[in-house]
Amino acid sequence: MTDNRNLAIQYAHQNIEHFRQSLSDFIRIPSISTDPDHKEDMVLAANWMASQLEQLGMDHVQVFPTAGHPVVFGQSLEHPGRPTVLIYGHYDVQPADPLELWKTEPFDPNQRGENLHARGASDMKGQVVATLKAIESIQKTGDFPVNLKFVIEGEEEIGSPNFLAFLSEQKNLLAADIMLNPDTSMIDANTPTIIYATRGLIYFELRVYGPSHDLHSGMFGGVVHNPAQVLCELVAGMHDEQGRITLPGFYDSVLPLQPEERQDLSRVPLDDDYYKQQAGVSALWGEAGYTSLERIGARPSLDINGLYSGFTGVGSKTVLPAWAMAKLSMRLVPNQDPAEVEKQLTRYLKECAPHTVRWELIHLSGGYAAITDRNSMASNAMFKALETVWRKPPVFKREGGSITVVADLQRFLGVQSVLTGFGLLDDNIHAPNEKLHLPTWERGIDALIHFFYNLVD
Amino acid sequence: MTDNRNLAIQYAHQNIEHFRQSLSDFIRIPSISTDPDHKEDMVLAANWMASQLEQLGMDHVQVFPTAGHPVVFGQSLEHPGRPTVLIYGHYDVQPADPLELWKTEPFDPNQRGENLHARGASDMKGQVVATLKAIESIQKTGDFPVNLKFVIEGEEEIGSPNFLAFLSEQKNLLAADIMLNPDTSMIDANTPTIIYATRGLIYFELRVYGPSHDLHSGMFGGVVHNPAQVLCELVAGMHDEQGRITLPGFYDSVLPLQPEERQDLSRVPLDDDYYKQQAGVSALWGEAGYTSLERIGARPSLDINGLYSGFTGVGSKTVLPAWAMAKLSMRLVPNQDPAEVEKQLTRYLKECAPHTVRWELIHLSGGYAAITDRNSMASNAMFKALETVWRKPPVFKREGGSITVVADLQRFLGVQSVLTGFGLLDDNIHAPNEKLHLPTWERGIDALIHFFYNLVD
Repeated sequence: MTDNRNLAIQYAHQNIEHFRQSLSDFIRIPSISTDPDHKEDMVLAANWMASQLEQLGMDHVQVFPTAGHPVVFGQSLEHPGRPTVLIYGHYDVQPADPLELWKTEPFDPNQRGENLHARGASDMKGQVVATLKAIESIQKTGDFPVNLKFVIEGEEEIGSPNFLAFLSEQKNLLAADIMLNPDTSMIDANTPTIIYATRGLIYFELRVYGPSHDLHSGMFGGVVHNPAQVLCELVAGMHDEQGRITLPGFYDSVLPLQPEERQDLSRVPLDDDYYKQQAGVSALWGEAGYTSLERIGARPSLDINGLYSGFTGVGSKTVLPAWAMAKLSMRLVPNQDPAEVEKQLTRYLKECAPHTVRWELIHLSGGYAAITDRNSMASNAMFKALETVWRKPPVFKREGGSITVVADLQRFLGVQSVLTGFGLLDDNIHAPNEKLHLPTWERGIDALIHFFYNLVD
Repeated sequence: MTDNRNLAIQYAHQNIEHFRQSLSDFIRIPSISTDPDHKEDMVLAANWMASQLEQLGMDHVQVFPTAGHPVVFGQSLEHPGRPTVLIYGHYDVQPADPLELWKTEPFDPNQRGENLHARGASDMKGQVVATLKAIESIQKTGDFPVNLKFVIEGEEEIGSPNFLAFLSEQKNLLAADIMLNPDTSMIDANTPTIIYATRGLIYFELRVYGPSHDLHSGMFGGVVHNPAQVLCELVAGMHDEQGRITLPGFYDSVLPLQPEERQDLSRVPLDDDYYKQQAGVSALWGEAGYTSLERIGARPSLDINGLYSGFTGVGSKTVLPAWAMAKLSMRLVPNQDPAEVEKQLTRYLKECAPHTVRWELIHLSGGYAAITDRNSMASNAMFKALETVWRKPPVFKREGGSITVVADLQRFLGVQSVLTGFGLLDDNIHAPNEKLHLPTWERGIDALIHFFYNLVD
């Protein structure tokens, strides 16, 4: 096999204007998955994606219908014996509103300085097109070094409600050695980043029921147990004074951080000042014994996402409310099983809730954490690729959020993911004036070219 | 002085049909104080009231304007040296909605069986007319035994926002020896009741502020202190395991219950089953060491009236909210000063709130508790009056709710109140199909005739 990576990079640089045109074409399709008015645009975007895969010479290009928006598939299995890379992406975008806050039309890409402004430019049409163009650059200048499969969904921005069913049905079709998921961000333009772990999530609504109807707080206060008070007591008991979660057995299965990993994480240039500034707080908080980056990436957390009870309007109403509600969720880390955590929470409530009230725990959503071996062949290939282009080693970071598809692919197909991406933390994704930093995006194409070659180096 | 009480009672019985007509006339004026559309009806009702006082031969009948609805005054000071009774009442009523739940028109009194159905029939136009007619019955059959002053306000159902200012301005005009306030209820038609204490109230909104804006719970969960969690912890700390309130010094000034008083309260036929049934709960709760009736009437309580934070809609949103809010109020008992309690709560928050959040305590409303000597001349006069008519001793009860005017009159004029009334607990006051039990109302007129004579007996 000839390593023509330099020719491929030369091709990429010569054709960068065409690549940008292609990205702009993709962006102009307003593929807003949550909005039924854009149902046809979703089909247009899926078909655009399929035609790109056909132009790359993929076989079996198919637009699979689902109960929601279609999934686009294509593959190229020319090299038996070499690794197969499954490329994950999504062609859907967030809504653009509030429209009045955009400086230019969200679906008409506008370049200002080094940035291209448009909905989806960074999340993630830019990343999808970077991957397509890295592949094109290699194909036009040599033989592609590995086998490829593409799976591009249209429902990532609405929580991928139909993607797990698709994965289960198409388990054989999607079989691969590694997954490349370019849907994460770099910390900044000078800090190439590999995400090697994501947190899981389990989300509940906890309801506490007291009297059969709202009561007068004068006529019953002090005699009827107030469900809002009970809810607060139950919530308060879920953390101890060290910021640890008190559910019975909660930490038993948590994968501990190894010294070497803590050392790697300490290299990530996101310090407490960064988090304070981003959050707009004067002091941080968290589990004793861990840095902020460790707390976010490697330790579970429990948050109250919402509270409701009784009278919440302006002024006063002397009601003893009939019920109270908390939305509460936990971010889980590798080795924690959401089903086990639900049992732990249920056990806590059974042990701690007083007999003067009734309670109900409603499971709303959930997903597993995931972790990838930082020393795998694919991680090494990406590490070297980023190091070559940026002339400095990338950082390994753990993501505090949840990327369901990463855990699902690991659980259903046994495939580990390499997570990276060439958007930046300040790209305003999901917000007005989303942007893509074009010089970083162009370096990203180069890095992906190196990555595919490195896989067989 | 001749005691013509039997002639007066005879007069009342002979004229009961006229009395009912008079009550119906009063009810037909829809004097809804909270509804600006009924501003003219408020004036009509005040004028109706004034004309009644004039017909009773009162002097200085005046309709005093206030910043809101007017206050009606009148007096008769014919007997220097004898007690002056200040009669308190209100001519305003609650709104009638939801209208569709009324069986007949709310402002067109409808008699069904022994009950007269209409808004205001029980609360408190019926009680006001009973008092007027007791006085008329005495006047028509003899010499009135005591001096009288009337103060009838039009804003009781909206919290008497302008009444305290009126009391302060007209302190001399309102000077009296005792106040008669017939705005409370009997436990049932066979249990005449004297209320001798009311609880005070202090109502706050407690806000806890965390990050400057809502955060993603994955990207910040475990690092930024969640203000909803902090709020719950602060609320949870306000009660101990004995159901006692933990604010520093909270019970220091509470007037303890005397053994004799506890014995009296134990005679009130409202047991735990009654409260369970009214509240629709399977078990009661409260401060250790007290009965339900004692907890409601004689012990302070702290209730959460409302909770709000973050996402409260259907489904899940993974937000770490920027702020959280609780409406919280305390019912206070005699000797507790609301201003002191506010300091205690502030001190608790200063001691317990973590430095990772900011908090704000907004005072919304408040008022003092009140207590009347059960052995005063006026209490004795009412006790005997009720005992004579019902042929059994009345019960002394402490009210869990707050009747601001009682405490204000006690504080500003040094006047103790006798609280009674001839509505029943099941009269649907503030609800559709309000009713007045006519036989009880007629006995009430008799009892008031006895009361006025007993004052000089």
